[in-house]
Amino acid sequence: HIYVSKAAAKPQVEFDYDGPSMKTTVPGPRSKELMKQLGQIQNTGAINFFCNYEESKGNYLVDVDGNRMLDIYTQISSIPIGYNHPALLKVMANPNNLSTFVNRPALGILPPENFPDKITESLLSVAPSGMTRVQTMSCGACSNENAYKAIFIWYRNKERGQNTPTNEELNTSMINQAPGCPELSILSFMGGFHGRTLGCLATTHSKAIHKLDIPSFDWPVAPFPRLQYPLDEFTRENAEEEARCLEEVEDLIVKWRQKGKPVAGIVIEPIQAEGGDNHASPDFFRRLRNIARKHGCAFHVDEVQTGGGGTGKFWAHEHWGMDDPADIVSFSKKLLSGGYYHKDELQPDKPYRIFNTWMGDPSKNLFLSEVLNVIRRENLLEEVTRSGKALLNGLYELQAQYPSILSRARGQGTFCAIDAFDDATRDRILLKARDKGVLLGGCGDRSIRFRPALVFKEYHVNLFLNIFNDVLAQHK
Amino acid sequence: HIYVSKAAAKPQVEFDYDGPSMKTTVPGPRSKELMKQLGQIQNTGAINFFCNYEESKGNYLVDVDGNRMLDIYTQISSIPIGYNHPALLKVMANPNNLSTFVNRPALGILPPENFPDKITESLLSVAPSGMTRVQTMSCGACSNENAYKAIFIWYRNKERGQNTPTNEELNTSMINQAPGCPELSILSFMGGFHGRTLGCLATTHSKAIHKLDIPSFDWPVAPFPRLQYPLDEFTRENAEEEARCLEEVEDLIVKWRQKGKPVAGIVIEPIQAEGGDNHASPDFFRRLRNIARKHGCAFHVDEVQTGGGGTGKFWAHEHWGMDDPADIVSFSKKLLSGGYYHKDELQPDKPYRIFNTWMGDPSKNLFLSEVLNVIRRENLLEEVTRSGKALLNGLYELQAQYPSILSRARGQGTFCAIDAFDDATRDRILLKARDKGVLLGGCGDRSIRFRPALVFKEYHVNLFLNIFNDVLAQHK
Repeated sequence: HIYVSKAAAKPQVEFDYDGPSMKTTVPGPRSKELMKQLGQIQNTGAINFFCNYEESKGNYLVDVDGNRMLDIYTQISSIPIGYNHPALLKVMANPNNLSTFVNRPALGILPPENFPDKITESLLSVAPSGMTRVQTMSCGACSNENAYKAIFIWYRNKERGQNTPTNEELNTSMINQAPGCPELSILSFMGGFHGRTLGCLATTHSKAIHKLDIPSFDWPVAPFPRLQYPLDEFTRENAEEEARCLEEVEDLIVKWRQKGKPVAGIVIEPIQAEGGDNHASPDFFRRLRNIARKHGCAFHVDEVQTGGGGTGKFWAHEHWGMDDPADIVSFSKKLLSGGYYHKDELQPDKPYRIFNTWMGDPSKNLFLSEVLNVIRRENLLEEVTRSGKALLNGLYELQAQYPSILSRARGQGTFCAIDAFDDATRDRILLKARDKGVLLGGCGDRSIRFRPALVFKEYHVNLFLNIFNDVLAQHK
Repeated sequence: HIYVSKAAAKPQVEFDYDGPSMKTTVPGPRSKELMKQLGQIQNTGAINFFCNYEESKGNYLVDVDGNRMLDIYTQISSIPIGYNHPALLKVMANPNNLSTFVNRPALGILPPENFPDKITESLLSVAPSGMTRVQTMSCGACSNENAYKAIFIWYRNKERGQNTPTNEELNTSMINQAPGCPELSILSFMGGFHGRTLGCLATTHSKAIHKLDIPSFDWPVAPFPRLQYPLDEFTRENAEEEARCLEEVEDLIVKWRQKGKPVAGIVIEPIQAEGGDNHASPDFFRRLRNIARKHGCAFHVDEVQTGGGGTGKFWAHEHWGMDDPADIVSFSKKLLSGGYYHKDELQPDKPYRIFNTWMGDPSKNLFLSEVLNVIRRENLLEEVTRSGKALLNGLYELQAQYPSILSRARGQGTFCAIDAFDDATRDRILLKARDKGVLLGGCGDRSIRFRPALVFKEYHVNLFLNIFNDVLAQHK
C-alpha cells in the first residue's frame, strides 16, 4: 500500500493512546444493557454506544465495554482538541474558576466582572474579518434563531427609516399579525442545515425526517451547486453549475419580493455539512455576497460546523479571501457554546430584543480561552492543513483502488468526505470501520464525513488509512 | 411596624451574609466603566450592573463596587439554592466529576455510562405525576421549541393513523410546504411567555418589543383570566372571568380547525410570569385540561419559571391537585438546564426527529442532583411555604399602608408579586430598593416580582420588608 506513508513519526501528544484496541463488537454487552435502561426514559434509536469519558484521551474515545476507538467524528464535530486535554483539566483545577461553574449568571443583565475581558480574549480574538461585536448564546440553533431575528430587526428598521414603530405595528405584533410581525423571509439552500428549532428548521433542507410534520414558513429555497470533484479538474462544468444556482437565487429574491415576502437575509454554510459535504468555489460565495448586497439582504454565514479550525483556517469563509465576507457569522460546536458575530449595524436598536435568561455560559468561554491558547501554542491550524492533505491524498488513492465502492473524495483541511456506492454500502462501511476501531460519521445520502479533532496528526491519518483499507478490502 | 415580626431567628445558613451592605449607588463607578467596555461589543441597555460572583454568597449578590444586595430576583429566577452553595462547590472538588465538565458529549448518540442513572436520580426523581420520560435540552427556549415539535409529530401521527408518511408529504416537507409541513397551530394565551426563538415567540404575548419585526405564525391567542386579588375575596367574579376565557378557548379551537389550521396543543404557564404574575384557579386549569382532551390537543404546561420549588411545591401545577395534569411539562432555569417531561405517546416514533448536537449538558445534571439533595435534606419546600406566607402577609400589610402606591399583592410560596401605581412608579421603587440593598425584578406593565432562592428564610423576608417599608415611606 504505497499510499500509506510510514514516515510520519508518532507525535508527542502525551495524553494520546497508541492506537485503537477492540474487545467486542460495538455496541458491546454493557452498552446494550444501558441502552435498554435508557430506553425506558428516551428514544434510543440514534444512540451508537455508551462512553467512558474518564478513560478517553486525545483522539481516542473509549466505550463502556473497554473498546478504544480512533475518533474521527468527535461528538458531531464538537470536541476541538481531543478528550481530557491536560490544558482543560488545568482550568478545572484552578480554584479561581470555581465560582464561574457554580453561579451561572443571567449574562444580559448581571454579567461577571471579567466578562468583557474573557470574551475579548476568547471569542473576539478570533473574530471574522470586519467584526468587533459578538452575541453569545447557548447552542447552535439558538445562535441561528437569534441571528435571524437580528436580521429581521435590521431589515425593518431600514424599511421604516429608523423611525419608531407605529401603534398599529406594536398592536398587531402582539397577535402575530402584519405589519407588526411582517412577512419577511430568509433565503436558504437545498441541502443546507441550520438547526431544528422552528425558525432554523424553515432554512434546513437536508433530510425530510427532520422537517416532516412541523409547520413552517413560506421562504425561498435555492439550489446549492452540485459540483464535480476534484474541483480543479472540472472548473468549467462547475462554474456553469454555480452560475445556474446564482441566477436562481436572484430570481427567487425578485419573486419573493413580488409575493410580499421580501428576503431580509441569505443564510449559507461555507461547506454544506449535514447535507453531504457539498463544496462551492470562493468565486461562488463572492458573487453570492454581492447579490445579497445588491438586493439589500443580510449575508449570514453559518459556521456552526465549519468554524473552529477543521478546514485549516479558523473560519472556513477565510478561504474565500475577502475583506468583507459576511454581515453575520454564527458558531457553536468546537467553540463550546453558541453565538454570532455581526457588523455594527446588525446590533438591535433597543435592549431586550435579542435576549434570554442565560445568553450563553461563561464557564464554556473559560474552556474556549484555553482551547485557543492550545491552538496557537501548538500551531494546530498548520497541523490540520498538513494532516488534511495527507488524508485527502489517501482518500484519492483509495477511491482509485476501489472505484466500485468509493468516489467524490473532497475536503478542506481535515474537513473531508467521500461517497460510498449507496447508503446501504455507506452504513455497512461505517459499522465495519467501527468494529475495527475507527469512529466515523455519515452525512447526506451516501457520504462518509471526517471530523477529527485539531490534534489529529499525520500519524493518525496513516493509522486510519491502514484500517480503512482493510475494511474496504474485506468489503470487496 | 407591627407587620414586621422580629421573632424569626437568623437561620443557620453558614454561607450567608448578615445583611445588605451598600458602598455606592448602583451601578457604581466600576460597573459604569465595565459597561462602557462591554458597550464596544454588545448592546448593554439591559445590563443592571457587573457582579463579583466569587464574593456572592447565599441570598446575597455582591457587585464589582463592593455593594452587597439581598437578591430577590436571582438571575431571573434561575439560582435555586443561593450563590456559592458549599454543596455545589463540593461537586467541583470531586475529581470523579472532572471529565463531565471537560468532555461535553453528543448525548443523543454517545451518552456517558452514568447518564441513565444520573437523570434517574436527578430529573426523574422529581418527574411530574404520570410521567416517566424526559428529554434534556440546553435552554428554556429550545425546550419549548422541541416540546412543540413533539406535539406536532404526535398530532400528525394520530391523524394519519400511525401509517408511514406519503412521498408527497416527504417531498413537500423539504420545501416547507403542506402536507409535509402542515398548517397546525399551538394555542397560547395573551400575556403568556414561552421564549423568544421563532416557534416559541409565536406563543409569547407579553410585550410588543419582544415580537416586533419578527415573522410569526397565524396561531390562536386566547385571553388569560384577569383576576381580582386576593383570590378568595372575589371567587364569584373570578369564576365568571375564567368561564369567559375558557369559552373563548373552545371557540378558537373550533375556528382554527375550520380555518384549516387545527390546534395540536395548548401551552400555558401555571402562573404567567413575564406577563405580570397573573394567576388562575386550579379549577380553571382542570377545565382547560379537559377542553384539551376533548378536542384532541396536547396539554403543555410550561414550568420554565414556575418549576423548581418557588411556589412551595416542586411544580406549580401540583397545586391543581390532579392525577393527570399534563401531557408535556417543560422546564429550565432553577433546573440548571432545559428539557421537558412527556407522556409515553408523545415520544417521537423515530430517532433524529427530536435531536441536536448536545441535547443538554450532563455537567448541569451533576449540579442538579446535588441541588435536589439539598432541597430534601433541608426541607426547602416547607421553608418556601413558610417564607412565602410571611412575605405575602407582609405585602398585604404594606398595600394596606400605602394604598396609593401598591395593590394586588398575590403569590404562591415565595413566587409573589405586587403592583405599583404605574410603570414609572414601579421602576422608581425598584431603583430605590436596589440602592438600599434589595434586588427585585419587574414584570408585566407595573408589577414587582419576587423570585428569591429556595434558601430565602423568614429572617430574610423580615429584612426585606423593613427595607421596602423605608423605600415606600420615602416615596410618599
